Amino acid sequence: VNKYIIGLDIGGTAIKGALFSESGEIAFRNEIATPHDSGQAFFIDTLCDFAAALSDGHTVDAVGLGIAGILDPACTTLLESPNMPALRGMPLKAQLEQRLHCPVIIENDANAAALGELRAGAGRGLSNFLFFTLGTGIGSGLILNSRLWRGEQGRAGEFGHVTVYPEGELCGCGKRGCLEAHSSGTAIVRMAAAAAHQHSATALRAYAEIPSELTPKIVYQHARAGDAVSRDIFKAMALGLAIAIANVHTLLDIYTFIAGGGVSRAYDYFYPMVMEEIDQRIFSSVRGRIRLLRAELGNDAGVYGAAYAAREALNLAGL
Amino acid sequence: VNKYIIGLDIGGTAIKGALFSESGEIAFRNEIATPHDSGQAFFIDTLCDFAAALSDGHTVDAVGLGIAGILDPACTTLLESPNMPALRGMPLKAQLEQRLHCPVIIENDANAAALGELRAGAGRGLSNFLFFTLGTGIGSGLILNSRLWRGEQGRAGEFGHVTVYPEGELCGCGKRGCLEAHSSGTAIVRMAAAAAHQHSATALRAYAEIPSELTPKIVYQHARAGDAVSRDIFKAMALGLAIAIANVHTLLDIYTFIAGGGVSRAYDYFYPMVMEEIDQRIFSSVRGRIRLLRAELGNDAGVYGAAYAAREALNLAGL
Repeated sequence: VNKYIIGLDIGGTAIKGALFSESGEIAFRNEIATPHDSGQAFFIDTLCDFAAALSDGHTVDAVGLGIAGILDPACTTLLESPNMPALRGMPLKAQLEQRLHCPVIIENDANAAALGELRAGAGRGLSNFLFFTLGTGIGSGLILNSRLWRGEQGRAGEFGHVTVYPEGELCGCGKRGCLEAHSSGTAIVRMAAAAAHQHSATALRAYAEIPSELTPKIVYQHARAGDAVSRDIFKAMALGLAIAIANVHTLLDIYTFIAGGGVSRAYDYFYPMVMEEIDQRIFSSVRGRIRLLRAELGNDAGVYGAAYAAREALNLAGL
Repeated sequence: VNKYIIGLDIGGTAIKGALFSESGEIAFRNEIATPHDSGQAFFIDTLCDFAAALSDGHTVDAVGLGIAGILDPACTTLLESPNMPALRGMPLKAQLEQRLHCPVIIENDANAAALGELRAGAGRGLSNFLFFTLGTGIGSGLILNSRLWRGEQGRAGEFGHVTVYPEGELCGCGKRGCLEAHSSGTAIVRMAAAAAHQHSATALRAYAEIPSELTPKIVYQHARAGDAVSRDIFKAMALGLAIAIANVHTLLDIYTFIAGGGVSRAYDYFYPMVMEEIDQRIFSSVRGRIRLLRAELGNDAGVYGAAYAAREALNLAGL
């Protein structure tokens, strides 16, 4: 009898799901809109209907689920839920297992994506790496000894909120100088909006009156086209990232970093900028040995990782 | 038959040693001056004579040795040796085992001290903590899942060289803004020497012409006695430390930090300063949960840790 596992990735916009066969391949996949303003009961109903449709008539042995927010250390309850505040405090695991009649494994979304890259992406065969997403925010998952490092309370991997500039920009989290405040897509747009006002000799000037239309992609395109101000914005973003990466390396003696998320589409452009700065901020004896890879699974990292988390939990339980 | 283990701590000034009985207690101890300018052969001779004297007639089952510098990943060869450059590249383990006729386990000195605090000091019973020494420099050892985290190449725990101020002071390592350049004993003395020149209304003024006589202890005593400039120096030292501690917590989700080294004698004084700043630099949901403990083993952490490293290696080897 084949073992089927469903991987679910609960994003801010969409819920992605895939049915994985025992060989680890995606047999069937689908996507629905995330029910934002609904309550807990509607969310559970939506998720269970989605899982039932995904199962495609097969008996599902386990469901893995990646979701933004902070889980309790046992990964059963959602303690903080930035995208869907209504889910806060919800005993997600128990409720889903009751309805789905199979083990449900829940994981933070960045952690799940890191597991996905470990098993099926850029981290295959590696023992230690930090995976991070460059998007609106910056999330991350840390792999140590080929396993996810969750920390004592399950909150590990808040790479986006390490301080890179003690007197830096105010971050959405309320702290100052976080990596996310200097190197996320949001930070790129903030710098571009400021530059559109301050500099006359930049293509970004066209957005001075319509800053809300700025995106990281627009800044990237102008930088690629030779706009010096746009290039400097990416340089500032790369410097923050380099400081944070160098610090993780210096503390943990790990050498591989994997960039995912929407802004990682500009990987080829910012890669040399980041690498040059990293080498200024590590011991000379290890220069040239840090690797910054591009994530391979793209939008699929979440469902792959959720499915792998579920498979590992099943194996550990001897099923 | 009792099992005896020798722990050796090779410091910049002295070599400390202790004979541990099977119960883990120190049966005998001694200390000799570190042979600085001698070559490798003399160093080995000195160390073997010292170990023989320490064994006090007992058969020794293993020798553990903590030493400053960077070891190869297998902990057999000293790749970098800041205190004794002549030892660089030395196959220390093989040479000592040949002479001492028992297994010799070598560990970085800060790592050994962290193991000592884990087994017999402030870290007893804890699964995760960062131990660091505040001295001339800042070293550290990271305990994850009750084991030393050595990193991929055995270089982990360079807490003193994480960047806290990207545009900060030049560090002895050649980088800029390292924690060590802002919060070590050396940094305290540097700030005090500058203040002695710049501020007329400080007790440090007396050292304007004799800055080489300044020590962290003098600055501490003046701060305690109410000198505002000396207090501000400790505040600056505490701020750097708080930034670095908050970053380790944010990345790894660990909650306990243990301060050792000479400057930790001022623990009672800088503790509230550090804790106040940490709370500004972590998520509000975890405020008040970080613990900064004072190391308990003092100068004995190194010999304890070296002996524990040896004992663990013996157990792993089934001896």
